[in-house]
Amino acid sequence: MKTKTLKQLAEYVGGRLYGDGGVEIHSAATLEKAEAGQITFLSNVKYVPLVRQTKASAVLVSEKMDAAAAQIVVEDPYYAFMRIVVLLHGHRQHRQTGISKSADIAENANIGKGCNIHPFSTVSEGATIGSNCQIYPGAFIGSGVVMGDDCIIYPNAVIYDGCVIGSHVIIQANATVGQDGFGFATHKGEHHKIPQIGRVILEDDVEIGAGCAIERGTLDDTVIGRGSKIGDLVEIGHGTKIGPHCLLVPQVGVAGSAVLGHHCILGGQVGVVGHIKVGNMVKIAAKAGVINSVPDGATMAGTPAIEAGKARRAYSLIEYLPEMKKKIKDLEKQLEKLQTDGEKS
Amino acid sequence: MKTKTLKQLAEYVGGRLYGDGGVEIHSAATLEKAEAGQITFLSNVKYVPLVRQTKASAVLVSEKMDAAAAQIVVEDPYYAFMRIVVLLHGHRQHRQTGISKSADIAENANIGKGCNIHPFSTVSEGATIGSNCQIYPGAFIGSGVVMGDDCIIYPNAVIYDGCVIGSHVIIQANATVGQDGFGFATHKGEHHKIPQIGRVILEDDVEIGAGCAIERGTLDDTVIGRGSKIGDLVEIGHGTKIGPHCLLVPQVGVAGSAVLGHHCILGGQVGVVGHIKVGNMVKIAAKAGVINSVPDGATMAGTPAIEAGKARRAYSLIEYLPEMKKKIKDLEKQLEKLQTDGEKS
Amino acid sequence: MKTKTLKQLAEYVGGRLYGDGGVEIHSAATLEKAEAGQITFLSNVKYVPLVRQTKASAVLVSEKMDAAAAQIVVEDPYYAFMRIVVLLHGHRQHRQTGISKSADIAENANIGKGCNIHPFSTVSEGATIGSNCQIYPGAFIGSGVVMGDDCIIYPNAVIYDGCVIGSHVIIQANATVGQDGFGFATHKGEHHKIPQIGRVILEDDVEIGAGCAIERGTLDDTVIGRGSKIGDLVEIGHGTKIGPHCLLVPQVGVAGSAVLGHHCILGGQVGVVGHIKVGNMVKIAAKAGVINSVPDGATMAGTPAIEAGKARRAYSLIEYLPEMKKKIKDLEKQLEKLQTDGEKS
Repeated sequence: MKTKTLKQLAEYVGGRLYGDGGVEIHSAATLEKAEAGQITFLSNVKYVPLVRQTKASAVLVSEKMDAAAAQIVVEDPYYAFMRIVVLLHGHRQHRQTGISKSADIAENANIGKGCNIHPFSTVSEGATIGSNCQIYPGAFIGSGVVMGDDCIIYPNAVIYDGCVIGSHVIIQANATVGQDGFGFATHKGEHHKIPQIGRVILEDDVEIGAGCAIERGTLDDTVIGRGSKIGDLVEIGHGTKIGPHCLLVPQVGVAGSAVLGHHCILGGQVGVVGHIKVGNMVKIAAKAGVINSVPDGATMAGTPAIEAGKARRAYSLIEYLPEMKKKIKDLEKQLEKLQTDGEKS
Repeated sequence: MKTKTLKQLAEYVGGRLYGDGGVEIHSAATLEKAEAGQITFLSNVKYVPLVRQTKASAVLVSEKMDAAAAQIVVEDPYYAFMRIVVLLHGHRQHRQTGISKSADIAENANIGKGCNIHPFSTVSEGATIGSNCQIYPGAFIGSGVVMGDDCIIYPNAVIYDGCVIGSHVIIQANATVGQDGFGFATHKGEHHKIPQIGRVILEDDVEIGAGCAIERGTLDDTVIGRGSKIGDLVEIGHGTKIGPHCLLVPQVGVAGSAVLGHHCILGGQVGVVGHIKVGNMVKIAAKAGVINSVPDGATMAGTPAIEAGKARRAYSLIEYLPEMKKKIKDLEKQLEKLQTDGEKS
Repeated sequence: MKTKTLKQLAEYVGGRLYGDGGVEIHSAATLEKAEAGQITFLSNVKYVPLVRQTKASAVLVSEKMDAAAAQIVVEDPYYAFMRIVVLLHGHRQHRQTGISKSADIAENANIGKGCNIHPFSTVSEGATIGSNCQIYPGAFIGSGVVMGDDCIIYPNAVIYDGCVIGSHVIIQANATVGQDGFGFATHKGEHHKIPQIGRVILEDDVEIGAGCAIERGTLDDTVIGRGSKIGDLVEIGHGTKIGPHCLLVPQVGVAGSAVLGHHCILGGQVGVVGHIKVGNMVKIAAKAGVINSVPDGATMAGTPAIEAGKARRAYSLIEYLPEMKKKIKDLEKQLEKLQTDGEKS
């Protein structure tokens, strides 16, 4: 951790400082837990009262507030906060193993400058690793894999043969990239494995969460677009295309040959069926089940997924079903009585 | 990749050829992406128009169509296509490591002929491995495991002690087989671990997807029947029995002591509660939650799962709940007015 | 396996024996499968008929039954059964590798007495391992991790830097603890990684299932309380606090900054959104989606989750929606007719 003055931090993020610029900040924390010497942020109006109570030395805000703590006013406080966390705390430092003698590296593998290839990792025949990559213990790089620069492959992550990994890609521990797609031809009651000859392509700046499973394509490649971030335990089916700058929250499943546009956000445990098209900038609420193509910009929820506002109103009424059923029965009885009375009169 | 003539391919799959038998085919592709020299297939009427547009040299179809590309007519085009993909592309070739000196193999382990035991893999005491098995780096074979012939255990897959693996079994990367079942005796607010003395038995031709978790049984074995294929990130509970030739799509969860029959198909993210019986040839739609036993041949959907046709009609009406509620209110008002009017008259 | 007489077993669990105390018991089994020489238990009235049919030499019951098998009457038969399984079968025995020369252990790591550090495992710089810990092959202990005594880290489990693991903690194979939380600051359409400076703290007696993904905190620690048991493939978000003695069944997902009380039970595939508070002793039915805070002692079901009894009644009516819709239409027609008739008369 490095220490900076508030003045330095305000300049660094291009913000206006309200408070003593000489105060030293050594680290970042939440509104609730921050102490003197720490900086925090406000990005949700719900937490405005906490700004007034915080013990932090400074708060990043989008407009000047009436509060004791010093404030740095910026357009996007969370982004500014991210930059300050990077400045003060930095990203994870990796062990400088160089190319370990206890790694298993094929003779014809190509490894760029500055890589740390940890013990017990495997780089298979014909694989190419760019410069400054971190290959942690137990990571497996299959034959013919091509990887760009500055990638981090965490322990026991597995990349199957032939996959293409861009630059600045992060793969968290125990994730699997490029295993066989779930493709079988069923004939006379037996399921016959179809060789999965497509690859997985992870474009630049992609992050794959821990324990993910990204299937290779049956014939076409599976692609995850530039800058997309995939949470833990996500399943991506064979031949699926995820556009650039998407966020797929943990435990999402996208079935084979689905196509997602750019800047989509899928909430936790969302499921998307195969062979449909989800447009650009689509948001899908947690746990939704998407079974039809979705137009650009839509926000969806529920299973089967419908427009989110409609879903919110509709699903909140499920609990009134017993009451509705009773009311219908009452109406039927009353109507029958009216009809009988009418006939009598 | 090998090159074959169309005549050779038609004979190989026992189909009728319409077109020039001398045309050479080097690989397989999709209707959309195929080029000259490639073969493709039609298995879904939805894609008939693509057959007319495809640039493929040949298409496998179930009946002769009016299209430019040469056609091979067979009863089951997808099965024939699978056979041709195997013929032209083959299954994955494995590195010939033999029994690596960098593997950790117990002295009393038995290893069959022709196995490749890769560096950093473990074969524990008393384990038996059949012939021609591939044990990739980081794979762990527990003590007393018995494995048949021609198995492929991909990197970092883990098989706990005492499990029984048939022949031609494939376990994808980072899958876990035989970890302790989720079994605790709760007493005075504390959960006490029950030793899980059952095993996992994977019968012949089973495939287990990447990142799966197949619990061993508490007392009885967990069994996955012959030829069943389990997708990625699937959870199978302790003592559960999956019948032969089932397909469990990624992210399915089947709780402990459930019993599934043969040829069941469970869609993505399906959940099945414990201690119920799912019959033979049952199909369960993606995301369904099955809480009761299911008869043979049923197709189910929804949570709680009901017959699928019924579910489709019912769930599609959820979005009309606000409208239904309003209509009921209107009916009540009108009826009240009628009653009041009746009393007045 | 050890053999004990029924008299010894009855004394061991403090139960009253009905039957021949000299009978020898060598192992435990289910009511259905038990044979002579085995002991079983009854914990669910549904299985009372099986007690009359069992071939077991003895059954643990909570009250004396009219059945042929000898019986040991105890207050909590399942707990007594667990104790007997431990007595007869024991917990898993671990290989005595000592500190393997094929493990990669940092010079400044601290390792307690009696540990088995298996080949191909990694203990990074500055890590501290208590006494009698088992670190299986491929397990990765990050830099600065602090671990208590008697922990078992199964093959290929990964613990990232700085995490704190209590005593008697079990981490099943391929689980990941402390990977980066899913935290990005989105600015001008790009997602910028926020260094995740919180840790994961697993308190004493926690068990983490196979393939789990427990995110480290962004700023605050992620905490799993004493004695809580986490099933396979569970996702715990960044900064989430799980109280003591909870049971999270496989495939549960709890999003970031959620807080759970003590003794909560979450069924399979449950999802809990971030930033909410779930009280103490809350039960959540399988597949439920919890989107609001939940009071102490509540039982919840459905998505969005509501009180479970209400949910059971309401969700069971979804299949009658088509009928309800039809009835409403019929009522409208009849009412219209009545109104028309009224106007005519």
